[in-house]
Amino acid sequence: MQAQRIAVIGAGAVGCYYGARLAEAGHDVHFLMRRDYDVVRAGGLHITSPRGDMHFDRPSITRSSAEIGPVDWVICALKATAVDAARELIGPCLGPHTRILLLMNGLGLEERIGEWFGPERVFGGMAFVGINRLEPGQVQHIEYGAVVVGHLLNDPAEVDRALALWAPAEVDFSGHESLRGARWEKLCWNMPFNGLCVAADGISVDHIVGDPELRAVARATMEEVVEAGQADLSDRGERYRIDGEGHVSRMFSQTDNLGAYKPSTMIDYVEGRAIEVDALFATPLARARELGVHTPHIATLNALLQQYERNREAGER
Amino acid sequence: MQAQRIAVIGAGAVGCYYGARLAEAGHDVHFLMRRDYDVVRAGGLHITSPRGDMHFDRPSITRSSAEIGPVDWVICALKATAVDAARELIGPCLGPHTRILLLMNGLGLEERIGEWFGPERVFGGMAFVGINRLEPGQVQHIEYGAVVVGHLLNDPAEVDRALALWAPAEVDFSGHESLRGARWEKLCWNMPFNGLCVAADGISVDHIVGDPELRAVARATMEEVVEAGQADLSDRGERYRIDGEGHVSRMFSQTDNLGAYKPSTMIDYVEGRAIEVDALFATPLARARELGVHTPHIATLNALLQQYERNREAGER
Repeated sequence: MQAQRIAVIGAGAVGCYYGARLAEAGHDVHFLMRRDYDVVRAGGLHITSPRGDMHFDRPSITRSSAEIGPVDWVICALKATAVDAARELIGPCLGPHTRILLLMNGLGLEERIGEWFGPERVFGGMAFVGINRLEPGQVQHIEYGAVVVGHLLNDPAEVDRALALWAPAEVDFSGHESLRGARWEKLCWNMPFNGLCVAADGISVDHIVGDPELRAVARATMEEVVEAGQADLSDRGERYRIDGEGHVSRMFSQTDNLGAYKPSTMIDYVEGRAIEVDALFATPLARARELGVHTPHIATLNALLQQYERNREAGER
Repeated sequence: MQAQRIAVIGAGAVGCYYGARLAEAGHDVHFLMRRDYDVVRAGGLHITSPRGDMHFDRPSITRSSAEIGPVDWVICALKATAVDAARELIGPCLGPHTRILLLMNGLGLEERIGEWFGPERVFGGMAFVGINRLEPGQVQHIEYGAVVVGHLLNDPAEVDRALALWAPAEVDFSGHESLRGARWEKLCWNMPFNGLCVAADGISVDHIVGDPELRAVARATMEEVVEAGQADLSDRGERYRIDGEGHVSRMFSQTDNLGAYKPSTMIDYVEGRAIEVDALFATPLARARELGVHTPHIATLNALLQQYERNREAGER
């Protein structure tokens, strides 16, 4: 595949890391930056990683999507809380054949992007990665980093197209036959771990897996997510089913090896930023209820996290 | 009934308020004080209340139970977290006929006191009261104040004896045929409201009853408490049963009228003090599990609150 022109929208830790891997692989990558623009302009973009450090002294960065213009691929790595802004930010980068890959958390985001720009061009990527933005222009990749990608219409030829884009990059990138299934599988981790790490007042995942009571709550939450996911897939007429038990044990054994990892939502919470409660909790919960799945653990986490957001907003006023 | 000699052990807001009501009624009341001794010695004990203010310029206060010596009644209003200290503090006040009334939160406390001093002399009182210690020697009674009392062996003659003690006092005091039943009925309020007010990061009860999601979690938690309570009563061979549906609606309609009330556990939490998680959560949860009652909401709140205690202890080190 010849080098592709790529716009990275949302240049936080995830956007910077994966955009840098694509640039390193020879693609023509342009980062939309706001908060960090001046620092990166002056000092470059620097990423430390066990898979190899990357340094870009003069990355292509811009303050507006219009300056980038139409590209082959938009990589959108905004926070789910900023999805409303995505329409305006992505729009100027679209040509007739532009594909859009979301590297975002939560359920229902690809569907919204698909309504705006057409579902045939929309992909979702689930990144399982330990990564932090240390300061502007400085990203620390700690561990993992694999990405699973699905296509909004589950078109295998489109999934292959995404795989081809990433093939030269230093990323374990694999396709998934069901985007929706992959989203629920990712939620199996995010709902218990992001949720409990926040609700337990800002702890790392080792405290969850290390305490029998919290671990049991995490497992029960995950089982509710599996059940909701299976019901959703079945209701949508998809053939794909989550390998429930196998997936749950894999999530726990991976997390057992994750050490004092801090989920992004937990970092956002302790730093007083908005948390992705709608995409990660409210939307999947609403869907589970629609399908008649009993979800006491998810409902409790959602109710608490929504309240934290109200507390934060009240504190900001 | 002639005036009784009374020791109040644990002179926080609850101990001061109810001790003062007994003193006002003509009983001979002695307060064990530590933290507040000097201030009360110098300036007295002052209580504001919609049921009538009370001012004691020279209340009988002491720093040690031994100075009080044997009494007719011990009123023990320690925090449940201090139950281990109760043995030493109560002991010196006991004569052969001394009765002990606990005005404390949680399950299993009377049983422990009964093991130490004999069950025939032990009572539990459930206070439903809005009350705060503003500063040393200053207590603000906001609203409510009724006390329901039960006897550890459910002896009706003993319950009458407690009623006689309180008859002259400005307190709505009533007997309960089942101490254990009354404890579970009180937990129906404490577990959802104390638990969620803490877990939602220190909010007042109006936020719980006012948000449909949190309200639903509170109700589901309460229903688990009712179910565990019924199973416990049945397992113990008691005839008493909680009026489940009626009790749940009463708890909610009372709380709907409580305004921005802050449960004591929530105040302890935001002020960095130990919270009564064992007596209010771990002990009832363990009992529910023993009885095979499914308690996802209680288990989640317990796991979170135990983690807050670990966070607090780690912060203290």
